[in-house]
Parts: sequence; C-alpha cells; structure tokens
Amino acid sequence: MKEPFGYAGHILRLNLSERKATRERWRKEWAHLFLGGRGLAARLLYEEVGKGVKPLSEDNKLYFMSGPLCGTDIPLAAQMAVVGKSPATGIYGLAMVGGDFSPEVKRAGYDGVVVEGRSDSPVWVRIKDEEVEFLDAKSYWGMPTDRTQEFIDRKLSDSYSVACIGPAGENLVNYAAVVVGRRTASRCGLGAVMGWKKLKAIAVKGTGVVKVSDPSKVRRMVDEAKKIVDEAPITKKYFKEYGTSVGPVNCSSHGVLPTRNFQTGVFDGAWELSGEAMKQKGYIRDKVGCYNCHLKCGRVTMVDKGPYVGAVSEGPDYDTLFALGSNCGNSNVESVIAAETLCDTLGLDTISTGVVISFAMECFERGVLKKEEVDGIDLRFGNHDAIVKLIPKIAYREGIGDLLAGGVREAAKKLGRGADQYAMHVKGLELGGYDPRGATGIGFSMAVGSRGGCHHGQGYTIPDELTFSRVDPFAIRGKGAFVKKRGEERRITDSAVTCNFSRFQMDDLAKMLSAVTGEDYRGDDLYIIGERINNVERCYNVREGIRRKDDYLPDRFLREPMPEGPARGRRIDNDELLNDFYAAAKWDSQGIPTSEKLEELGISDIGRSLREHI
Amino acid sequence: MKEPFGYAGHILRLNLSERKATRERWRKEWAHLFLGGRGLAARLLYEEVGKGVKPLSEDNKLYFMSGPLCGTDIPLAAQMAVVGKSPATGIYGLAMVGGDFSPEVKRAGYDGVVVEGRSDSPVWVRIKDEEVEFLDAKSYWGMPTDRTQEFIDRKLSDSYSVACIGPAGENLVNYAAVVVGRRTASRCGLGAVMGWKKLKAIAVKGTGVVKVSDPSKVRRMVDEAKKIVDEAPITKKYFKEYGTSVGPVNCSSHGVLPTRNFQTGVFDGAWELSGEAMKQKGYIRDKVGCYNCHLKCGRVTMVDKGPYVGAVSEGPDYDTLFALGSNCGNSNVESVIAAETLCDTLGLDTISTGVVISFAMECFERGVLKKEEVDGIDLRFGNHDAIVKLIPKIAYREGIGDLLAGGVREAAKKLGRGADQYAMHVKGLELGGYDPRGATGIGFSMAVGSRGGCHHGQGYTIPDELTFSRVDPFAIRGKGAFVKKRGEERRITDSAVTCNFSRFQMDDLAKMLSAVTGEDYRGDDLYIIGERINNVERCYNVREGIRRKDDYLPDRFLREPMPEGPARGRRIDNDELLNDFYAAAKWDSQGIPTSEKLEELGISDIGRSLREHI
Repeated sequence: MKEPFGYAGHILRLNLSERKATRERWRKEWAHLFLGGRGLAARLLYEEVGKGVKPLSEDNKLYFMSGPLCGTDIPLAAQMAVVGKSPATGIYGLAMVGGDFSPEVKRAGYDGVVVEGRSDSPVWVRIKDEEVEFLDAKSYWGMPTDRTQEFIDRKLSDSYSVACIGPAGENLVNYAAVVVGRRTASRCGLGAVMGWKKLKAIAVKGTGVVKVSDPSKVRRMVDEAKKIVDEAPITKKYFKEYGTSVGPVNCSSHGVLPTRNFQTGVFDGAWELSGEAMKQKGYIRDKVGCYNCHLKCGRVTMVDKGPYVGAVSEGPDYDTLFALGSNCGNSNVESVIAAETLCDTLGLDTISTGVVISFAMECFERGVLKKEEVDGIDLRFGNHDAIVKLIPKIAYREGIGDLLAGGVREAAKKLGRGADQYAMHVKGLELGGYDPRGATGIGFSMAVGSRGGCHHGQGYTIPDELTFSRVDPFAIRGKGAFVKKRGEERRITDSAVTCNFSRFQMDDLAKMLSAVTGEDYRGDDLYIIGERINNVERCYNVREGIRRKDDYLPDRFLREPMPEGPARGRRIDNDELLNDFYAAAKWDSQGIPTSEKLEELGISDIGRSLREHI
Repeated sequence: MKEPFGYAGHILRLNLSERKATRERWRKEWAHLFLGGRGLAARLLYEEVGKGVKPLSEDNKLYFMSGPLCGTDIPLAAQMAVVGKSPATGIYGLAMVGGDFSPEVKRAGYDGVVVEGRSDSPVWVRIKDEEVEFLDAKSYWGMPTDRTQEFIDRKLSDSYSVACIGPAGENLVNYAAVVVGRRTASRCGLGAVMGWKKLKAIAVKGTGVVKVSDPSKVRRMVDEAKKIVDEAPITKKYFKEYGTSVGPVNCSSHGVLPTRNFQTGVFDGAWELSGEAMKQKGYIRDKVGCYNCHLKCGRVTMVDKGPYVGAVSEGPDYDTLFALGSNCGNSNVESVIAAETLCDTLGLDTISTGVVISFAMECFERGVLKKEEVDGIDLRFGNHDAIVKLIPKIAYREGIGDLLAGGVREAAKKLGRGADQYAMHVKGLELGGYDPRGATGIGFSMAVGSRGGCHHGQGYTIPDELTFSRVDPFAIRGKGAFVKKRGEERRITDSAVTCNFSRFQMDDLAKMLSAVTGEDYRGDDLYIIGERINNVERCYNVREGIRRKDDYLPDRFLREPMPEGPARGRRIDNDELLNDFYAAAKWDSQGIPTSEKLEELGISDIGRSLREHI
C-alpha cells in the first residue's frame, strides 16, 4: 500500500514457544484481494497452517484480526475476526466478536495479532503499542473469564482490552470460546486452541491514531452510517428495544425455532423466552454495546428472584435463547440467563453447549443414555436444573461432561448405539438456531458453510426468508445464487470489519472503504472480494479433504417431515441444494472450486497449490 | 488550618433527598483535635446524628472519610473510615476498608464524603473532582457487587473507584457491608444504611495532588515507612507470604480460635484452614494489595477442583477463616473460599455472617431450631454445604435467612426459647475471631469497644498477648491501661488513615504527620488525640443509653470454663474487667466519661452536651 490509510500495514506475530514478538509487514496487494479481517486471515491461514496440521498442535495458529474501518470514526466497526483451524471440525475455523479488542489492536499499530507455537506453561501477553511482554499466567490458570479480566485489569495501570479463555478452553472443550469483556468469539472451539497453546489471555492497549485518506469524507460517512443504522427497518423497530431477543417468538411463528433438539420448529414456550417477557418481568436492566456503537444490541439482564436470583448476563441473545431454551425444551428464561452467565464465565459457546445438551437430552429420552451414565441427572427436555448442572461438568470435563465436551459428532461416535442420528451438526459444528426445513437458505448456509453447520456459514438469510418475505423460505432450486450473495456480503463485513447488525449495504461499505483507504471501491468490487474469500476458505477445506459428502445436513431434516407449523410436512432435498449452490459458485460436483473460478477471482496460485494436495 | 497541607480542607455533602451536592469547609481546629478520618467522623457524627435517631432513617448519615496521610506518597495509607449509626447495634458504627477509594476522594479535593437523606428510588453518585452527578441506579439494584462494579465501570470512561452495596445492603441485612473492589467495610451493617438510603454506589475519581508541607522530609519518611513495614517481625516473617491466614493454626495452638460458636478455642481442623494448607493445595494464585502498598496482604485464592471449583476470592483472611470455618466447625477450606466469594458479592460481613450461622448451628444441634424451621437444611456443625446454602438465603431474606438477617441479638430475641445464650455478641455486634478466655485483652476490646463486640473495639492485643507474649494473656487486673493504649493507637491509624498491618508506631506516625501537615506532632500528642476520639465515641454511645450493663461479654465466657487447650478452665471476670478499664479511662462506675477526663482532653463541650441528654 502506498500510504497505510485505514491499515496499520503490520501484523504482530507472537511466538509462544520462543516468547518472541515480531512486527511484520504484510503483502500490500492482499489488501486489494482480501480487504483485511476475515479475508486476510483466510489467506494467511491457507499459506501458514497447511494440510493435516492438527488443530491442537504447535503448528496451528490463531489470527486475531482487525480491519480497515476499525479504529476510525465509522460506527459499528469494532468486530474482531478470530481465525484458526478448528478443533471441533478439523477445518477452517472462524469466530467473530465485538467489544473493544479490535480497535485497541488497530490503534496499537497492527491489523492483526497472530499467535504461534505453544508455551510450556500458562502465559499471558501484554501489548501496548510496540511494547510486548510475555507474562506468567499460572495465577490465572483455571480462573473463570470474569475473574481473569478483573485480576488482569488490576495488574495494569492503563485500561486494556482483554481477550481470554476460561476453564473450558484450558480443558480443551471442543466448543470453548474466546471471551472479550462479556462478549464471546464463540464458534469453532478456538478457545481450546488458546488453551492448548497455554495462552490464558492477551491484553492490548493502543494509543495511536488510525489515519484515513479523506477525513472530511469519512466524517460525512459517519453521519450517513449512523442514519443507516437508525433507519434500517429491523434495527429501528425492534433491535434498539430488545436486541436479538425478538427472535424466539418470530422464529416459532415461522416454524423454524429449533425445539427439543431440532425435532420441531414450533415451541409453545417461545414467548417466555422473548425480550418482551424479560422486560415485563423487569429483568432488562440496561443496554450496552461495543466500542463506538449507538445501537447497543446487548441487554444487561438480571434475575431478581427464585433459584437463579442474582444471575447477571449481557444477553441472552437469540442464539442462546434457542440453544439453552427451546432446543432443550426449556421455557424458563431465568435458567437461560443463569446458563449464559455460566457459559460466558467458563468460556463456552452457548450455541454448541445448548445443542450438545439437547443431544444428551434426546439420547436420554430415547434410552440411548441411561440415568446412571449421566451422573444421575434427570436429563428430560425442559429440566432447566439439569441444563445448569451440565454446563460446569462440560467445562471441567467431569463425569458425563467429559463425553459431551467433544461436541455432538465426537460424543455420538464414542457412544455408538445409533446416537449419531441425534447429533445435530455439519462437519462437526453444532447447528445454529434455525430449522432448515422452514428456511432453506439457512439450510444452504449450514450445509456449505466454510466453518461447518453455522447459520452464518455462508450468509444469513432469515430477514429475507421470513421477516420481509423477499424470497420463498421453502424453495431450493435457484436459491444458491442468493445465499452465495449473502455469503459474500458477510465475508465483506467480517473483513471491513463491521457488525452484522449494522445493515450497511455493499454500496455503503464501498463508500466508507474508499473514504478510509483512498482506494476506489464500488459495491460490485466487494462482491468479488467476498467471493474470493469464500473460495479461499473452501479451498482450505477441500485441501483438508472436505467434499460433497460432507455438505449434508443431519438426516433428520432430509427424512423427517417438519411435524407442525408453517413448514409442516417439509423436508430438505440436500442433493438439489448442493447442485444448486455448486452451480452458482462454479464449484464442481464434488464441491471443489473450479480452476476457471479461481482464475476469474485472481487466485490461480491457490488453485495450483490446491491441486498439489488433492 | 493555615495551609491545607495534608488536608483538602473540605468535605463533600451528598444530600440524596434533594439530589444536591455541597462542598463545605470543615472547622480547621478539628484537625488538631481529631486528626481526620475516624476521628473527624466521630466528631461530626456526634454533632449531626443525635440521640435516638433511627439507624434506618433519613436522619442517619454515612461518613466516608479519608485522612491526612492518604493520597501522599506515604505507603499503606489508603484506608477509608466508613462511619454512621449502626443498624446492628443502634450506636456508633465504624468499618474500615482499604483499596483505592480513599485516595481518590482525597485527590478529588475532599477529606471525606458525607451521605445524607434518602432517595426515593435507587441512585448512584459519580464524583470527579468538583463534578458531582446523581444517577439512576435502577439498572444496578439487586446486582451483586462484582457485577455492579463491572457495569458501572463500563459506563465510565475514566478509571473510578467504586464503593457499592450488594443485595444484602438493599435487603437491609443488619450486617450488610460496603464493598470497594474486593475489599469490604464490613462491620456494623453500614451497607444496610446505604441500602435504606437507596444509594447503590459511589464512584469517585480525583485528578488533583495532595500538597504536603515538607516534600523532602516526606520522601525520607516514605523510605522509612517502607523499612518499617519490611522489618517488622510479623510482616517480615509471615505476612508477606500468607497475609492473615497464618491465624488459624496460631490461634488454635493458643487456645483462642473460636470453634463451634465459641464453645472452645481449639479446632482440630485449624491446619486445613491455614495459608500453608491453601498454598500446598495450589490455591494461592497471587498477592494483591491496596493503593500504594507493597506488603500486599491479600491473597487471590482459587479452588480448582471439587464442588466449589472456580470459586475465586481475595482472601480468605483470618476473620473469614474463623467465622465461616472453625466457628462453624468447618475445616473445608474450599467451602470457606466459596462462602467468602458469596459474602463479598452479595455484600455481607463475613464475621457476622459466620457467627450468625454458627449461632443457628448451635441452636439446631441443641434442638432450639428444628429442621423444618430451617428450610430442611441439615444445620450440623461442619456441614459446609449448609453454610454455603445459608448465605444467599440471608442476603435475600429468604426462609430462615430472614430471621438470621437480623443478626444474633435480634434473631435470638425473636426466637426466644433460650436462644440468647448462644448469641455471641456485645451490644448487638457479633464477636470477632478470638476467644476472650484465652486472651483477655481482646475480651476488654470486645466488652468496651465503641462499636460493640469487635476485636478492634478498643485495641488489637493478639500480638502482645500471644505472638510475642509481651503481656499475660490471662490477666485482667491492670490490663485496662494497656488495652486503652492500644485503642488509642488504633484510633490514630484509623484517622491518619494508615493500615493496621503497617506496624507504624506512634512516633513514626508523628513524624509522618508532621512532615505532611506542617504541624509539630509527637507520639504522645497522638495518644491524647486517640483518647479524645475514644471518648467522643463513648459519649456518643452513652447518649444513646449505653452503660455498664451493656459492657458484658456473652455469658458463655463468664460461666463456662474453656474446656481445653492452654486456656483450659479459664473464665472471664467481667466486673473486674470493667472496673479496671473504667479506672484507666477515667470513666465512672457506669462507664460514663467523667467531666474531668473530657475537660482534660479539651472536649468539655461534648461533656456539657452529653449531660443535657442523660
């Protein structure tokens, strides 16, 4: 890059084996090809963490990536992309998180921090601009994330942002999260990678300023960006009041709210899990947001009576409400608040935790798991006490928790007895909060998502399919192109790095990126970059052996018709889904990106390298 | 004062009824008479919170007082004296707390903050230098203290120090604490006064500098002070390693470790409660201290296995180890760590909580309380699960917790059935951690202490009586003068304000105070000031009706001989004790300070005012 407008131009490599930090220039042409954040991480991961590298090994790396809009005055641009090979799936892993870590990294003079190697003993790293210190973390090992942040904070004179893991990460739980404040980079078990590397925490403080190419244009874009956030229908109507907790009622009424381990999409306790219900009970205490965000999607909730009295959470968001609520047959919202607090402090992904518990519950109800095998806990759907009891068992791998700590794929495999039919995952990642039978776009996203069975695996389609009825929620043929487009947008926001809730369109982002970087971006350029990133991610997975056979949703959605609600009787034709998506993506019948596509995207080098390995 | 060296010269009055803040000069001659901190608060309380004012009423006030050495470079001078009329005792109430609140108050330009009136709805106050803001605290009402501090912290751009209450204070538990960070102003239930006033928290940030009279002399005194701390036998040998957790073994071997509700002074599980044991188990993770303290008496402890896994505490200190450990017949140190964490986050005094629980346990074991009356909990001594279960019940006044929330005096009175013989308190304050039969000096301190049955009620005598055998631990006659002297020292450190663990002698403090304030203090002057403060406190209590009859230790110590250990067979002759102390103090046979004494101390005005009321 000519001038480092919008970029620091450097990444910081932390080698834990040698306790050595290196400030390194990255290839400036990659800014044009991959933008930053998630995109840059994908390219680096492809090059640096090769075929067959074990996720829990010295050769895996963790990328904590900021992006070009972060640290400028553009609002809702505080996301961080955490990338590495996932212990849950064995392939490309990504988790996004807000808070204030990403802007601190950027102001400290880095576009990202890369963690390499492994420490012999627990370590934490303090970064203040060019100062980097590797410190003994024995004191903090075993500590919940809230205490870790509290006691690290007390060690530091300045106000740093801290990303850390809890006991779950240390104990290598396959869905351990990285925690920043009260927010979590939760999917793909990247907390376990930190745990394996014996890295308890990174604290970062930046005192620099991010230079932008056209300050007055950026100022105008800031106003425009705020207007977009304020006027977008979803954010305007519901989000400011309830955050994502509008989801349960909305999704249940559309028949896609995962209930009792995805057996149905309608939950009669949906209202009890809603933001409205929490508000009526007086549980919503405050609104909180990430750095430079006026939307403030976070709700501080507190239970003030009953067995969960005193539980305080920043949430629960929709993902948690479905996973630890409806999907476990649980309408006790107090227990969901308490369970989320436990997941956050122990460092667990609430989605996977909930889907793992619902798996155990279905196994229990169907006699696959006996009471004496689950430490005597009555694991019936809806038993909220059991849910709250299981969470620490998982984090500490105690009793039945040890089996469940592997996630549903691994647990089902170890268990045998046909348990795999209740394991709701794709490629080892537990599914996100939508039943694909009632919203096939989300089915595409989970089936062919680069990080496995996540609702953000490709793109997020719920507003289009349900809220605004822009597309037919049940159609499959012809939907691949639409999902692909949403997937490209998602990769751009994750690279810029802006929040998914901002509702910035590609044309908006192009203007912001142009003003910040001095490059001339159009919306269409961004779609190409997004597609390029998606193809790098897919190539990464193909190199690891991912093929068509891995792109199937759990059999339940293919064989069992949705029993009730608007999607009653629906099943998924997964082959049609794959044919449609592969055609739109120009991937071959095995789901391998074609050389033509890679050449068209200007990444033939990746294509050539891939052919050497497959 | 000529120049405000060492003093801000102002107090800040916060009137919650009117939501109005007033910066007020205080009478400069009081600096010479009462020094600051506890002393100044005593004088203000005497004048402002008159006879018969109910502790939980608009007319009670809370004084958060700093002192002349605080905010200078003198180490271990970060204490804060919290003073008000106590809901536990109905008389003078005091609790000291370290941390960083006191220096922030001082740097903000105040020698203390006085809270008056009552808010209609929950409120918190933000103070930054001369800026004072009254803010809605509905969001935080009901929140544990850790979450309160966390979420208030996130509201504030600067790093403030926060003093707050937890659910216990809000629910008017008679031994609710005020919490600063992880430290507590715990005795006398002043947290309930905050709760009654609907004051959830005060956040304070000071950016000023405390001017000292002779900077180069202060610099020399800083070095000298550090040397004193480093070379004092107790701090040198044990404190730096274990903090106060050296206590249980030491006290049990001297036969004064309160065990099973003060039935004996020897506990066979003492070692399990010791710092050494916690260290061997790997529970001690870090050392932490208050502002500008290199002694760092706080131990960050963490339980890493078993039912209390993940409990993290800054402690437990000796007070907690005896109260929630030996005195409940409990040698499970993991449960003590968990119980302390609960007390800190719910905002409870660990001493009173433990003594209340041991009272309930003795009542249970003697059949005074039936199982169905205690919510079915098996309240036998040593049942650590029961201890941990009772704590939230107390804080939330749930089931048996509602009775116990009143403290032992009130609970025994409500209960009848002879329960008062198991209520270990003086004047309504649960006793501190020493059996007076094995250390009579502590017996004096508890019997005639101005805040009731606290081991710091007069002076702290354990090092003299046990550790260094400077005085006979069993003697009564002639000991009054010695305890009185220790009491005067204590009042000076609480007014200066320095930490009790500093081991600064009066001559040292006189030099420090002279260098800081520009006044010419000698050690002997300080004893006179200390005695003056003690007499103001006593006069305050006499005005409330306190007489000789109230200065008796629980009957147990007077009638039941110590059953075992070095103090075997010993009982307390409380009349001899009082005769001796009153004579030394020049108080009359009813324990009323004589006019001669008050005149000698230059506070005849107090004497005259007192005569009008008695």
